[in-house]
Amino acid sequence: MTLTRLNKLTASLRTGGLDAVILNPGPTLKYLSGLNFHLMERPVVLFVAPDQEPVLVLPELELPKVNLFPYKVQAFAYGENPSEWENAFRKAAQALRLDGKRIGVEPRQLRLLEFRHVKAGAPEADFPDATDVLAGLRLRKDKTEVDTMRKAVRIAQSALEALIPQIKIGMTEKELSSELVMQLLKHGSESEIPFAPIVSAGPNSANPHASPTDRKLQAGDLLVVDWGAAYDGYISDLTRTFAVGEMEDEYKKIHKIVQEANAAGRAAAKPGVPCADVDRAARDVIEKAGYGIYFTHRTGHGIGMEGHEGPYIRGDNLQLLEPGMAFTVEPGIYLIGRNGVRIEDNLVITESGAESLSDMPREIQVVG
Amino acid sequence: MTLTRLNKLTASLRTGGLDAVILNPGPTLKYLSGLNFHLMERPVVLFVAPDQEPVLVLPELELPKVNLFPYKVQAFAYGENPSEWENAFRKAAQALRLDGKRIGVEPRQLRLLEFRHVKAGAPEADFPDATDVLAGLRLRKDKTEVDTMRKAVRIAQSALEALIPQIKIGMTEKELSSELVMQLLKHGSESEIPFAPIVSAGPNSANPHASPTDRKLQAGDLLVVDWGAAYDGYISDLTRTFAVGEMEDEYKKIHKIVQEANAAGRAAAKPGVPCADVDRAARDVIEKAGYGIYFTHRTGHGIGMEGHEGPYIRGDNLQLLEPGMAFTVEPGIYLIGRNGVRIEDNLVITESGAESLSDMPREIQVVG
Repeated sequence: MTLTRLNKLTASLRTGGLDAVILNPGPTLKYLSGLNFHLMERPVVLFVAPDQEPVLVLPELELPKVNLFPYKVQAFAYGENPSEWENAFRKAAQALRLDGKRIGVEPRQLRLLEFRHVKAGAPEADFPDATDVLAGLRLRKDKTEVDTMRKAVRIAQSALEALIPQIKIGMTEKELSSELVMQLLKHGSESEIPFAPIVSAGPNSANPHASPTDRKLQAGDLLVVDWGAAYDGYISDLTRTFAVGEMEDEYKKIHKIVQEANAAGRAAAKPGVPCADVDRAARDVIEKAGYGIYFTHRTGHGIGMEGHEGPYIRGDNLQLLEPGMAFTVEPGIYLIGRNGVRIEDNLVITESGAESLSDMPREIQVVG
Repeated sequence: MTLTRLNKLTASLRTGGLDAVILNPGPTLKYLSGLNFHLMERPVVLFVAPDQEPVLVLPELELPKVNLFPYKVQAFAYGENPSEWENAFRKAAQALRLDGKRIGVEPRQLRLLEFRHVKAGAPEADFPDATDVLAGLRLRKDKTEVDTMRKAVRIAQSALEALIPQIKIGMTEKELSSELVMQLLKHGSESEIPFAPIVSAGPNSANPHASPTDRKLQAGDLLVVDWGAAYDGYISDLTRTFAVGEMEDEYKKIHKIVQEANAAGRAAAKPGVPCADVDRAARDVIEKAGYGIYFTHRTGHGIGMEGHEGPYIRGDNLQLLEPGMAFTVEPGIYLIGRNGVRIEDNLVITESGAESLSDMPREIQVVG
């Protein structure tokens, strides 16, 4: 499978006018090798150039992994002294004759650590952004990938279902978050969960990117839970919002608006439609209800091996949806200083429309 | 507390000859702000320059965090369209008049994503490596930090103690790893654990950086467990090796050698001693026993908010140990294709010697 992926990459490099690409530990490297490398203080870089054996620079202690590659790679290993690193990178660049060439990079993944070493080995090279070229590889999920993502969604849903009866007034956000992680693992998530769950209540729920705190759940809070599971390298990323005890009327109202916006976004998703239209469909509902300024982020992002990848469901993204593209639909309303609501599902575009991999109730549930 | 830390940074920048430093989400930013920012596809950068209000570039949806800073920061927020990012970075660089200046970076943390945006805003600036200047901030732990690390060690130890009776022949490495993560959370680890535990048995245990697989525990395996907890931003990182059922004589022998090497490394650690001497003390034991070529990594690394930071316990590191420095001592012997052993403790240098924060039995225990 990963040999096919390597060939796909080679074809993409040619189309994208790149002589090579460099990858450090992250989703693209995992996609192309099937292997897990750690992102650490010792640089690991895979160089891929069409029609040549890929070259890997890595620390000696990682050498056992070289034989696990699904295709032959030429390895340049370095010892514990950082002064040896430069030399390994120079040899790698020379082996592929990369100096003066166009070497694609992933700016969101590649650190200065790796970049500066590669640049020292190929000082006259250009390093154009290869994000779009590489994103294309993973943008359309095949059936196996969708089945794996479906499983990651089911694990997440089962975990939350197990958590709901345990939610009580007086528990802290951190306690709930820990319990949710335990439920994710119990229900079959990989032990490296895709992200620490957001469990935020009351004023914290009005911050879309809150980290769990020691604040205790109080009656009248809205409770936002944004969580996901990992299964066989693919992830899920869902959000539901709960009412802790009695709810103010305005909160009932904004929850209903967000639920309608979520439904509108999901309904708009189908092949041939620009991403912007999905964003517009969800945003229209919130704007028409008078809460437009409280929906402060895009409607969604792509999902697969990463939580944040293409296609981005943003008002200015004219990219057309195609079968196999997978993304979140997650409108929200955030009343800063008071409470917030978000409802997030994971969709895959089909031949004729879109399938929501997630199907937990979206109606507000009272907990506590 | 974090205002003191900011002042400490300002002093370090002056000593290091830097006009500013840029920080993206990671341990240094957390140390200086007390806040958690996500490392994601939207760049977040804090610019710190002496005698000026720090400047923060961030997405609009993160704006609520600006008020949580323990000191005043000037924020430049951008919207969902990436074409706005450049402008926010330019304004940040202009506010601090950074163009043409020396702006320190952390190459192990900073991605090309952030770097290229900052560089576009300050095209004539230099970007020297500030790792050492910044490492100095966190290198000597104060009493509160050591107490927090002690707690992170205790959580990890309690979790492993709860796991040991559950280890049975036929369980997979992945199952054990998931169960260990659950125990870490149950015993009080933050839900964002510092790293996915390494649980590796049989031939996999001979790979120091193995990821858990579906391989089942078999009688005769050695089982390496390398795990840690997070508590209040600080982490622990321990390793113990177990025998699954009956053990070959050579495995008994190498376990004993590694245990002696671990003890020798710990005994050598005290103020005024170069890091290299701790490495040498541990390595000597293994070399004298004839297994030197099977100890393929350094003896340890610093520990605190990160798993891998200074001081590095490496044969060529002449840095002198000082009270408050914290690091791992983790010698190992890896018989590739067969089995491996590693025993890892977490030490803090005291006024007169070193304290091992970890104290679980290091003798081999039989499990299964």
